[in-house]
Amino acid sequence: MAQNGRQTLSEVASGEGVILPEPTLRRLPWYLAYLSTLRAKKVSHVSSTQIARELNVDASQIAKDLYFLNIRGKTRIGYEVTALERKLRDFLGFDRQHNAVIVGVGSLGAALMSDQGLQRYGLNVVAGVDINPELQGTFVGGIPVVNPDDLPMLVKKLGVSVGILTVPFDAAQDVADELVAAGVRGLWNFTPRRIRVCGDNTVVANTSIYSHLALMYNRLATMPQNQSD
Amino acid sequence: MAQNGRQTLSEVASGEGVILPEPTLRRLPWYLAYLSTLRAKKVSHVSSTQIARELNVDASQIAKDLYFLNIRGKTRIGYEVTALERKLRDFLGFDRQHNAVIVGVGSLGAALMSDQGLQRYGLNVVAGVDINPELQGTFVGGIPVVNPDDLPMLVKKLGVSVGILTVPFDAAQDVADELVAAGVRGLWNFTPRRIRVCGDNTVVANTSIYSHLALMYNRLATMPQNQSD
Repeated sequence: MAQNGRQTLSEVASGEGVILPEPTLRRLPWYLAYLSTLRAKKVSHVSSTQIARELNVDASQIAKDLYFLNIRGKTRIGYEVTALERKLRDFLGFDRQHNAVIVGVGSLGAALMSDQGLQRYGLNVVAGVDINPELQGTFVGGIPVVNPDDLPMLVKKLGVSVGILTVPFDAAQDVADELVAAGVRGLWNFTPRRIRVCGDNTVVANTSIYSHLALMYNRLATMPQNQSD
Repeated sequence: MAQNGRQTLSEVASGEGVILPEPTLRRLPWYLAYLSTLRAKKVSHVSSTQIARELNVDASQIAKDLYFLNIRGKTRIGYEVTALERKLRDFLGFDRQHNAVIVGVGSLGAALMSDQGLQRYGLNVVAGVDINPELQGTFVGGIPVVNPDDLPMLVKKLGVSVGILTVPFDAAQDVADELVAAGVRGLWNFTPRRIRVCGDNTVVANTSIYSHLALMYNRLATMPQNQSD
């Protein structure tokens, strides 16, 4: 990556070092998922208009998002499905392995450890971490649960880049601090606690499951009642 | 709820029929989680400044969010912890039971069925639904997996209000249509497919796990390298 923050054309083309806006990054996996189904159906080309219709996203927005990756469709033909799918997967990093630990092997932590699907998106969970001695030494979904004391060694030895936080609210900031001190630079926060990190060497992604539930409950409680039966 | 969309003061006070802005709804569970830890520590009062410091949210924003619920802090004393916690839990609907089905008992679906934590947030998963006959009749996390044909009966009989979508991209829209036809009005979409629903009788909440991964990978790949070893 260019030191001054500007990207060269070859970097853009290879998907390296391009800092994309968050909304674009959110949409790219949608495009990828759709392209995978098209490839499975042996469709060779797709237009941004087709993608737009399928995904309920503005066609010009799609063209703009893909242009960020230096991908342009051909007039009347559109995008080549297999090539675009490969470029998106590569760009999104789903084909590269990112070693991760899950801290807090409660119900959600254990559920995520059992979710084999994360592997297909480049996330390789190497261990669960829990303060409960009864859990240490056990396996969840084939993955070992270790003592928090082993965290720094584990991170160093296995090159862990992602720490998944599924601890209670009270423990979240301390665990985040410990992960960062151990050298983990990506925090995936499932707790309702807003994590603070210092400097620009750490990235925090928040997945607020309970916020989504709150939103849904509120809308359900306030929407007009169903007219049918 | 008042028919014309305006709320009376008593409705606001009881938390019924108040349509809150999405960002406010996202933050309320953060406040609730913090208040629960304060109550556990037997703290009696908390100021918006303290909440702000703890959660990294602007203090005036917190006061505004709570004012939506007709909750006001007292000068110099702040908010009463147990009362505010109770009001938030009640308002957010976490104390009321919402029956749900999980459609698609793959890795993520099975993981969510095993997550006992959802129950504490008012989500009561009554069944998994899967087209795979080998899964039908089995139990995951103590919850039965049923045939999609049983869905309409199940929804009617148990009053299912939430359908959780953990099916592949290709099946997502059809499953959403079937859920809505069966009378489910809340769709919690974990697939990368953007779901379309007609009318204003259905609410869709999207939890794009893979979009969060994409965001984290991109930021990890583009952030300055760690200086220390």
